[in-house]
Amino acid sequence: MSQQKSTNVVWHSATITREKRQELNDHRSAVLWFTGLSGSGKSTLAHAVEDELYKRQGRTFVLDGDNVRHGLCGDLGFSLEDRKENIRRVGEVAKLFTEAGVIVLTAFISPLREDRERVRNILPHGDFIEIYCAASLEVCEGRDVKGLYKKARAGQIPEFTGITSPYEEPVNPELVVNTGGDPLEVSLAHVMRLLEEREIIKAV
Amino acid sequence: MSQQKSTNVVWHSATITREKRQELNDHRSAVLWFTGLSGSGKSTLAHAVEDELYKRQGRTFVLDGDNVRHGLCGDLGFSLEDRKENIRRVGEVAKLFTEAGVIVLTAFISPLREDRERVRNILPHGDFIEIYCAASLEVCEGRDVKGLYKKARAGQIPEFTGITSPYEEPVNPELVVNTGGDPLEVSLAHVMRLLEEREIIKAV
Repeated sequence: MSQQKSTNVVWHSATITREKRQELNDHRSAVLWFTGLSGSGKSTLAHAVEDELYKRQGRTFVLDGDNVRHGLCGDLGFSLEDRKENIRRVGEVAKLFTEAGVIVLTAFISPLREDRERVRNILPHGDFIEIYCAASLEVCEGRDVKGLYKKARAGQIPEFTGITSPYEEPVNPELVVNTGGDPLEVSLAHVMRLLEEREIIKAV
Repeated sequence: MSQQKSTNVVWHSATITREKRQELNDHRSAVLWFTGLSGSGKSTLAHAVEDELYKRQGRTFVLDGDNVRHGLCGDLGFSLEDRKENIRRVGEVAKLFTEAGVIVLTAFISPLREDRERVRNILPHGDFIEIYCAASLEVCEGRDVKGLYKKARAGQIPEFTGITSPYEEPVNPELVVNTGGDPLEVSLAHVMRLLEEREIIKAV
């Protein structure tokens, strides 16, 4: 009986849209794409922004080497081709997160303009917020938190951005933050203001 | 002055954990892995569950061929190797979504036990909820919503699950739903009860 009934019923499987999720979250979703040299402070700033957004009940997620390189991109190395594919996949995953209503923050060196532009172009207009973490090679190398510059100078890392591999500065990024000089609080405030101005989050 | 100060300050970049996100969402995250033949109703059921969870303000996302095959896995075909890699990537993305506090629902045929077990094993214990959408080949072929069985029988699709390629039934799935016979409402109720029993969502 109930089976018979079922065949006559068209189940209205309303897909939960991005708009509905944004409504539930009370903020827009977007991709905050942090780019810059190793040691420029991308990850630190991304996590500081996430902290601040959490306080406002924002739904966020940080994608970085830590959670991508061992999993989704565990099959990729550091050749030019593999780094391209790494950024491509991160872009696609970031896109899925925006569809899920989440503000996704990515922290990858992503040294090539072409790769970043490809991510921008798979996203709806306005979703890709490129944030250039500007810090000179001298500052980054001086910090050398992970000891990578030392290794690169010693020739132990074949293609290292800034030393043996190019970093292409963004041409028209949505925001430049002076992470090489300003205190974190200042960069954080710049990002938060941008998010308010672009109406991704509501002003407090 | 403020720069000087900043160098003496250790910024406490508290990473927003999965636990904190789950607290904010007021539900646990998990992967609901729907598996079954083409036409068995995986996608329909996944979207119905998502609908119901949205009503309870749940944070969800459906991963299926529609949003994965053209993007993240756009470089993959349908060879055995590529299908394995497709499922691997979906599993890794699902994992990221659980870390983001989201209940992710996946709707892929995922015919091989080995591939599904691999996903189960990359996730923390209890996160992988395998839901077998049981529908006989006859029922699925009778529906043939997308006309794929007809094409497969005509030899136009080389490796088609159930026709020219095996489907391995789950051995110990968390749930079997009779999507080949029961009305959608019944399968939906079974899934919702499971989610309550496993304390992924609160009972209403």
